[in-house]
Amino acid sequence: MPAHTEHQPIRIALLGCGVVGTQVARILLHERRSLARRVGAELTLVGIAVRDTTVPRDPAIPTDLLTADATQLVENADIVIEVMGGIDPAQSLIEHALASGASVVTANKALLAQQGPALYERASHENVDLAYEAAVAGAIPIIRPIRESLAGDNITRVLGIVNGTTNYVLDQMTRHGLTLDTAVADAQRLGYAEADPTADVEGHDAAAKAAILASLAFHTRVHLDDVACEGITKVTAEDVAWATRSGHVIKLLAICERTTHGVSARVHPALVPTTHPLASVSDAFNAVFVEAENAGPLMFYGQGAGGAPTASAVMGDVVTAARNRVLGARGAGESVAADLPISAPGDALTRYQIRLSVLDQQGVLASIAKEFAARDVSIEAVTQDLRHDKDGYAVLVIATHTSREADLADTVSALTSLDVVDEVMSVLRIEGS
Amino acid sequence: MPAHTEHQPIRIALLGCGVVGTQVARILLHERRSLARRVGAELTLVGIAVRDTTVPRDPAIPTDLLTADATQLVENADIVIEVMGGIDPAQSLIEHALASGASVVTANKALLAQQGPALYERASHENVDLAYEAAVAGAIPIIRPIRESLAGDNITRVLGIVNGTTNYVLDQMTRHGLTLDTAVADAQRLGYAEADPTADVEGHDAAAKAAILASLAFHTRVHLDDVACEGITKVTAEDVAWATRSGHVIKLLAICERTTHGVSARVHPALVPTTHPLASVSDAFNAVFVEAENAGPLMFYGQGAGGAPTASAVMGDVVTAARNRVLGARGAGESVAADLPISAPGDALTRYQIRLSVLDQQGVLASIAKEFAARDVSIEAVTQDLRHDKDGYAVLVIATHTSREADLADTVSALTSLDVVDEVMSVLRIEGS
Repeated sequence: MPAHTEHQPIRIALLGCGVVGTQVARILLHERRSLARRVGAELTLVGIAVRDTTVPRDPAIPTDLLTADATQLVENADIVIEVMGGIDPAQSLIEHALASGASVVTANKALLAQQGPALYERASHENVDLAYEAAVAGAIPIIRPIRESLAGDNITRVLGIVNGTTNYVLDQMTRHGLTLDTAVADAQRLGYAEADPTADVEGHDAAAKAAILASLAFHTRVHLDDVACEGITKVTAEDVAWATRSGHVIKLLAICERTTHGVSARVHPALVPTTHPLASVSDAFNAVFVEAENAGPLMFYGQGAGGAPTASAVMGDVVTAARNRVLGARGAGESVAADLPISAPGDALTRYQIRLSVLDQQGVLASIAKEFAARDVSIEAVTQDLRHDKDGYAVLVIATHTSREADLADTVSALTSLDVVDEVMSVLRIEGS
Repeated sequence: MPAHTEHQPIRIALLGCGVVGTQVARILLHERRSLARRVGAELTLVGIAVRDTTVPRDPAIPTDLLTADATQLVENADIVIEVMGGIDPAQSLIEHALASGASVVTANKALLAQQGPALYERASHENVDLAYEAAVAGAIPIIRPIRESLAGDNITRVLGIVNGTTNYVLDQMTRHGLTLDTAVADAQRLGYAEADPTADVEGHDAAAKAAILASLAFHTRVHLDDVACEGITKVTAEDVAWATRSGHVIKLLAICERTTHGVSARVHPALVPTTHPLASVSDAFNAVFVEAENAGPLMFYGQGAGGAPTASAVMGDVVTAARNRVLGARGAGESVAADLPISAPGDALTRYQIRLSVLDQQGVLASIAKEFAARDVSIEAVTQDLRHDKDGYAVLVIATHTSREADLADTVSALTSLDVVDEVMSVLRIEGS
């Protein structure tokens, strides 16, 4: 990469002018002087690619910067900021930018979860920066700390609350005893959830971030398809109430682990002990809890979405990429050097809390316990819920010790066919204890 | 800086072999292969400088690496790791290393709080890296996020729990109602506090970190002498009990702020609302809460001390410095480009909670309120503590709105000379609300 002289401006192309793009443009235009001081060169916004240049924009956006010709814009830039989202045409524009020798800053989690390793390799080959702090957990610095600060350590586990919408929904259910539907409707009314909340409540958004985090944390290619994903749609008000009574809160977690079987990444609702730092992450906030061999537990907390917070993360990457161009350098690239195998979802180790409606008669617990023992699943505690209102039945809440996911699932499946079991009311994993 | 070829090993000199140095050496020796893969070159520990080579060491340390000749070691290294602490000879060895073209990684907060800006300038002049993630908040990545991730944002405030010993002491007082002396004695017994706990309980350790954080966050030279510092020695069990009753916990905070008067840095015990993310930081953990214009609130949490956690932070810096040498680059240097004035301590804006023993008679509140009004300090709430056991007297707890520190101090001073005031029992600042 050619070194910039102190005074040669760095040309910035912005692809996309939605909520995030507008804020990025505002910062680039309004903070010109302090940015130039920090970089050692002017950052010049040379154009903003939009689909339709006639759509009215925020008054902070000069209309003469708008263009529909993204390709031409990319070819005449030193740094390309991609905040349009989606796979196409974002992917081809990023590839074109890298091939043209531009550094790329992107917030595109969907693209990175599917094409990340190929793009990182391309950037490395072209000797330019590809940075994506904004793609995971919005404003929270998490990509750089994992990639650089923990580069001399070995990460063993990442537990992330990486979707603000579902955290808001679960938090409202916990605080106010709402049902899922009511809490989602509230979130929609307040702008925390979209009209179609599928990507959030089904866990797809969190799964994309899990794939990115797992790849980075374990120096291994983890694809979106490798992430076992379960959303929050089955979480009931009763589950939440039981969580509270057993000293937990329910959080949708992105879990990335390195085990003896390799690397696993999964997304599902989980019971988190109220004493765990993740338990106090409320409203639409995000947090990523990282465990490393030497550092021990670390947590990174902040706003996971929104125009200005996401733009802050984008601009951190832009300044770093720009400094690197001024210094004639590039930052550390991604490494998939460890290239660990992806472990089968059934090999994940976790704990279950199972709520069962059972016949209220002698010997029931013994026949249930037999099913656990037959599959090497050890029971930690059994509690009887006295508030069950179905005559002749009792509710048992069974917490297990850590076991293989597949053995736990088998046990639950066996319980459903027992005569003494009326209904398996809920199965939740317990994490972070 | 000359570029290293893929196979030329990077020579590492380690200065100091105490708790942290031993762990750094262990990681360098035991993780050779994965470190080499991440860096793209071997990291070779060429020697460990110690005062006395005959002192018995951890069995993980090969005795043939030990040397008493630190100068000679420094001259033959690409990266120098300084974990000996103290000003002398650390300062001259670091200066010598920089002048010899070596990158330096240090955990020396005392040195940086006093000589940081001169050393950063020297490193920049020599075009080598000077990294110090381990100097503030141990394992927690905080230096790099502030310097790089937030480089495109404007930080307005940093609130840090950056001393684990005092956090442990205050947490024990809060949880178990201990006196300060008992809690300190407990901390000493458990190894959380040193035999002479002065540097911790008087706030000196936190003040050094405040100077480093403020310099970095505000691109300004902030010296240790610029930090107003008050330790926890005056915090009583009664203060802690009152904090709990008013919905707060007492934390020793390092506070760095950018105001209209410039930059301020101060360390003192403060009442933090229990709903604030810092309130749940318990035991000897550290956390740094950062507010930035676009990112909003962020928090970084983890272990602030200890051999392995501190070594993790050191090694993150070592890997980054080594990658930079492989790539023929250097990381972003410190910038004091903003060069803001240091504001007078009296100009700091804060809130006070004042506990007073007063005559239990009519008109007392009016004469007290007059003193506040005369100094433009607005009262937010007055509570009477009914548990006062001194006949004829009442305890008033007064919380103020945000005011100038100097006006608040003047008000307290005026109260002490009022006839109706028996005693000013405690004055605590309220932060984070």
